[in-house]
Amino acid sequence: MKNKIRVSIIGARGYTGQELVHILASHPYAEMGHLYASEEGEHLFDEEFPRFAGRASLKIEKWDLDKWKKDEDLFFLALPHGVSMSVAPALLKAGVKVVDLSADYRIQDTQAFEKWYHTPHIDSASLKKAVYGMPELHRDEIKKADLVANPGCYPTSALLPIAPLLKSKEIDFDSIIIDSKSGVSGAGRKASLATQFAEVTENFKAYGITTHRHTPEIEEQLSLGLEQKVEVNFTPHLLPINRGILSTIYLDLKKKLHQKEVLARVSRFYEKEPFVRVRQYEKLPEIQDVVGTNYCDIAVRVDPRTERIILVAVIDNLVKGASGQAVHNMNLMCGFDETAGLI
Amino acid sequence: MKNKIRVSIIGARGYTGQELVHILASHPYAEMGHLYASEEGEHLFDEEFPRFAGRASLKIEKWDLDKWKKDEDLFFLALPHGVSMSVAPALLKAGVKVVDLSADYRIQDTQAFEKWYHTPHIDSASLKKAVYGMPELHRDEIKKADLVANPGCYPTSALLPIAPLLKSKEIDFDSIIIDSKSGVSGAGRKASLATQFAEVTENFKAYGITTHRHTPEIEEQLSLGLEQKVEVNFTPHLLPINRGILSTIYLDLKKKLHQKEVLARVSRFYEKEPFVRVRQYEKLPEIQDVVGTNYCDIAVRVDPRTERIILVAVIDNLVKGASGQAVHNMNLMCGFDETAGLI
Amino acid sequence: MKNKIRVSIIGARGYTGQELVHILASHPYAEMGHLYASEEGEHLFDEEFPRFAGRASLKIEKWDLDKWKKDEDLFFLALPHGVSMSVAPALLKAGVKVVDLSADYRIQDTQAFEKWYHTPHIDSASLKKAVYGMPELHRDEIKKADLVANPGCYPTSALLPIAPLLKSKEIDFDSIIIDSKSGVSGAGRKASLATQFAEVTENFKAYGITTHRHTPEIEEQLSLGLEQKVEVNFTPHLLPINRGILSTIYLDLKKKLHQKEVLARVSRFYEKEPFVRVRQYEKLPEIQDVVGTNYCDIAVRVDPRTERIILVAVIDNLVKGASGQAVHNMNLMCGFDETAGLI
Amino acid sequence: MKNKIRVSIIGARGYTGQELVHILASHPYAEMGHLYASEEGEHLFDEEFPRFAGRASLKIEKWDLDKWKKDEDLFFLALPHGVSMSVAPALLKAGVKVVDLSADYRIQDTQAFEKWYHTPHIDSASLKKAVYGMPELHRDEIKKADLVANPGCYPTSALLPIAPLLKSKEIDFDSIIIDSKSGVSGAGRKASLATQFAEVTENFKAYGITTHRHTPEIEEQLSLGLEQKVEVNFTPHLLPINRGILSTIYLDLKKKLHQKEVLARVSRFYEKEPFVRVRQYEKLPEIQDVVGTNYCDIAVRVDPRTERIILVAVIDNLVKGASGQAVHNMNLMCGFDETAGLI
Repeated sequence: MKNKIRVSIIGARGYTGQELVHILASHPYAEMGHLYASEEGEHLFDEEFPRFAGRASLKIEKWDLDKWKKDEDLFFLALPHGVSMSVAPALLKAGVKVVDLSADYRIQDTQAFEKWYHTPHIDSASLKKAVYGMPELHRDEIKKADLVANPGCYPTSALLPIAPLLKSKEIDFDSIIIDSKSGVSGAGRKASLATQFAEVTENFKAYGITTHRHTPEIEEQLSLGLEQKVEVNFTPHLLPINRGILSTIYLDLKKKLHQKEVLARVSRFYEKEPFVRVRQYEKLPEIQDVVGTNYCDIAVRVDPRTERIILVAVIDNLVKGASGQAVHNMNLMCGFDETAGLI
Repeated sequence: MKNKIRVSIIGARGYTGQELVHILASHPYAEMGHLYASEEGEHLFDEEFPRFAGRASLKIEKWDLDKWKKDEDLFFLALPHGVSMSVAPALLKAGVKVVDLSADYRIQDTQAFEKWYHTPHIDSASLKKAVYGMPELHRDEIKKADLVANPGCYPTSALLPIAPLLKSKEIDFDSIIIDSKSGVSGAGRKASLATQFAEVTENFKAYGITTHRHTPEIEEQLSLGLEQKVEVNFTPHLLPINRGILSTIYLDLKKKLHQKEVLARVSRFYEKEPFVRVRQYEKLPEIQDVVGTNYCDIAVRVDPRTERIILVAVIDNLVKGASGQAVHNMNLMCGFDETAGLI
Repeated sequence: MKNKIRVSIIGARGYTGQELVHILASHPYAEMGHLYASEEGEHLFDEEFPRFAGRASLKIEKWDLDKWKKDEDLFFLALPHGVSMSVAPALLKAGVKVVDLSADYRIQDTQAFEKWYHTPHIDSASLKKAVYGMPELHRDEIKKADLVANPGCYPTSALLPIAPLLKSKEIDFDSIIIDSKSGVSGAGRKASLATQFAEVTENFKAYGITTHRHTPEIEEQLSLGLEQKVEVNFTPHLLPINRGILSTIYLDLKKKLHQKEVLARVSRFYEKEPFVRVRQYEKLPEIQDVVGTNYCDIAVRVDPRTERIILVAVIDNLVKGASGQAVHNMNLMCGFDETAGLI
Repeated sequence: MKNKIRVSIIGARGYTGQELVHILASHPYAEMGHLYASEEGEHLFDEEFPRFAGRASLKIEKWDLDKWKKDEDLFFLALPHGVSMSVAPALLKAGVKVVDLSADYRIQDTQAFEKWYHTPHIDSASLKKAVYGMPELHRDEIKKADLVANPGCYPTSALLPIAPLLKSKEIDFDSIIIDSKSGVSGAGRKASLATQFAEVTENFKAYGITTHRHTPEIEEQLSLGLEQKVEVNFTPHLLPINRGILSTIYLDLKKKLHQKEVLARVSRFYEKEPFVRVRQYEKLPEIQDVVGTNYCDIAVRVDPRTERIILVAVIDNLVKGASGQAVHNMNLMCGFDETAGLI
């Protein structure tokens, strides 16, 4: 247990930035340093976002490396992909810990990164030391890391249910299909025509079929666990809701396997995890079961007719899929109780 | 009954533009001329908006006065306020009829216009000849007009229920309160942060209290009917729905008046109107009763305790509040059956 | 072309019943006979459902076989599963044509029906003569039928995209996964806790995994086309919208097949179909593209990395998935233009 | 400061019951006693409502006075109107404190109660001792009370903005109009056709105009403050959202009064209140500013043209409008820090 650390956010106005402010405002071991954004605020943060009234009465400062006071211990980067890697090196060099919520340090295979993100990687030095911040899979490395790459929202919802099964020889891992459905906040907070209310309400669509950039992130982590290269179909869809992801995952069996046994394997894997709840009863997980929380709820089904495993996982994309997991990572990096501020 | 006329739209990509395309695509006496917008389309209209597939396979042309072919009989201007008045004069001069869906020709009092819209009026010549296009109030003038100012959505929902009572001496017309609630499409089709799905869903707010620009339009029309100047409180609110307006209107009584009598006055006024339905039974009008239609449904209540009349009116803001009423005006201007294409 | 036929609905108060009234009210060759329900109406149909004001001013009569006037040519049965088969025999015996919107006559394999629906089949005599009412697959039989079993909403969205590929030897048909997402109206109009607004809004869930009753219907029709028994995984999900289904379908390839070729096969199959639109351009189908219409929009993708076909189909569950398809069937059974009342 | 008290809920399955469980699960000075309902649960509370997984693993017990163990200090009654008054007397007699969330003890004028609720009042003895549980208005009495009548959701949103102005001689209190809009959870958790998702989404309606049962509650509290009888127009509307109420309130001025002065009066009144935030800047309150919190946010406008005050207030109907205010009352009754468990 340590004293309070001082924490700043770059990108405080976005949805993940706001969620970080919300969590940190009642965190027992962290105090808010600076709220940075691309433009200075005319009003205090809690006047621009009145739901924070009285809980975050800070100025919104324009991030400027040259004027940086270096009075914080840890940074959350809630920045667009491609921007984080231009900011992180200076922070790391100054001895500050960094949790990056962009994709910039999630994928070790820079070729894959550049192919799927259509942008060169400009900081492979930091990348090598970056740890993929999924505590359930990489807890020990996260504890020692200075730079943590916070996982993508979709990959969180896909990897958590599959991970416990990666040692199962009965499964054909070339068959993985991940059919995911996400709320609109996943697209970030920006003025966009496609995410206008009138375009989304009473609507639903698939997008980025076979081309979504979370695919290589999912594949790299699965390949790591399987110790062999794997390719998946990942199909994202846009739900007419604000927050939440539900992923339905299909895996073919090569050999018979009972639902009970699959459920047992997944349950054992997460026995001691504070934020993964595996359903032991019939009710399937719904997005409302986890909205506003850092939980991932998982259900397991096996269809004996088609010999296929079907997994369902739900998360809040802004919490377990972003800012909650980021604070979980901070807790680990700083030696705090890992659930601090999250339950 | 006339032959088919040729009709063009400037501003075809907006929500009112699309609704015009939708209505005109099955109109018996109008054929689509050109679909104009501020930017040329890369794809055909029904590829950019696939719900029109097969019903509007036209190019989207950039509007350019110099290249205008003048091969149409009537124009719908679905343009932002301030822009219509820079386009209309040339069309009128060329002998084309114009239905303008902006506010530019709705208010005869240019001082009021300039005060509430914060922009100078640059076409008072056309304004003088413009007719306020609410068929229930100005049918005969519309029939003879070359330029019709299509009413605002909120004013439509406010004026229709009040208009039948303007001769009622029992009412204190200084007491008018119009509490209106509108769907998001009323804000137009543009990339805006305030109307992002995540900002609107599970939310509700008032806006523009005492300052909304539909106020002088409502006041001018009421004053015209009353033959005296009247000022009202008009309070718009933003509903988390796509289409529809519900206005709740409060009027103080100076003298007792029974609900039956008020209902009778309103019912008589609209007896022969094809698009106004006055509720004779208890069920109150809901927005879903009129969405997708050109109807305005009205209910009448009198509270004998407080001696106040309460009126409720619902419309689809894109149909009766915009494009449906615009086609109604076109029908009248061209001598067609006035319900053509609308029922 | 024939004269107007007289048509009645049993179950007029439900969502499919109301949608039938809506379509039939402007059908050129059908006139409304009786509106039957399980309880007599206190008010006229268009007072109980004011959006129909002026379009369906009929009494709601309690259905009673003994008091039946037999003054109609065709019945739509918009009844719960298990009820239709207690009503249809008497109608058929009296020489009336029947389009049944329940599941009672959709599945020829009564064993499968009884297993999945947990109810005995009590009218196998009519079942034998019943035709599965998907015009794109069974048009000629429908034209000659007296009893048509209108397809389920989910099966419509699943069969239409897969059907054109059933002769493709490159596809492994044991691999079919149908991940479907439906609006709430699919659950019917009844007071239920699970479909209360507060339980559905900002929520999303899977249900009936491996057990949904539309599975045997899909499997029987696919097996018929394939001329061999096939089993599929069908996973329905509940969307927080009123109307619409989107199905995402995965098929493994045994041999390479280019997207172009798959798209060509599907497009050719539907070349002359009035209500199936196959996307020739990049934009994926969205539910809003078809809501309120009888269209099914289909997109085709092939992932060369995983060698898998991905199909996306959207329909309005109350129109193409129920009442629109039912009227399409009526048009075929009665020799009308098959798009009458539907475009 | 006292030790932990033991608290039970009757009606734990409803929306206000669930919200009580949610708040109490992390309350520092209260521990959960029993969760009672009208039917025993088959599963634990957190299996029936999985979002509580691990936070409320209690049985759901059928409430039965004869089997009552009397092992608690305080009861929350989250029961329908008319039921609470049949339960409360026995609890009070046994020396247990009671916070009643129904309307049964809110209105001292039993004639008014019986007229608006169409039911006889059967416990006037307790009623006399009951305190209206709005801490901002009756804090001192609540501290001493054994029976607190928790205010209605609409009255909370109406009384808080008006209360600070009741001494203002410039206002005509016969002119009060309260135009309120509420989310669906206000109707309670029950299988009802009117609140089905498909009936509410993309819809909006007024209901209970001039007849809603919260009217006499509002009037009694206002009359108390004014020391004279007042009658108001209260018009509720149903919003397509789960939680939240926004009330727009209109008051006529008899004499000029500047917005600044009205704002100052309201602000002073709530200066020390922990849960009322009066807007000092331009942004109007939105429902999302308070959802999930015990805050009431208030904005003040004066229209100098019409000489009318317009007040806007937002609350979460399940928190400040029900369970949050109930816990606030419990805190006061038990001598706890009054914000315990609520911030």
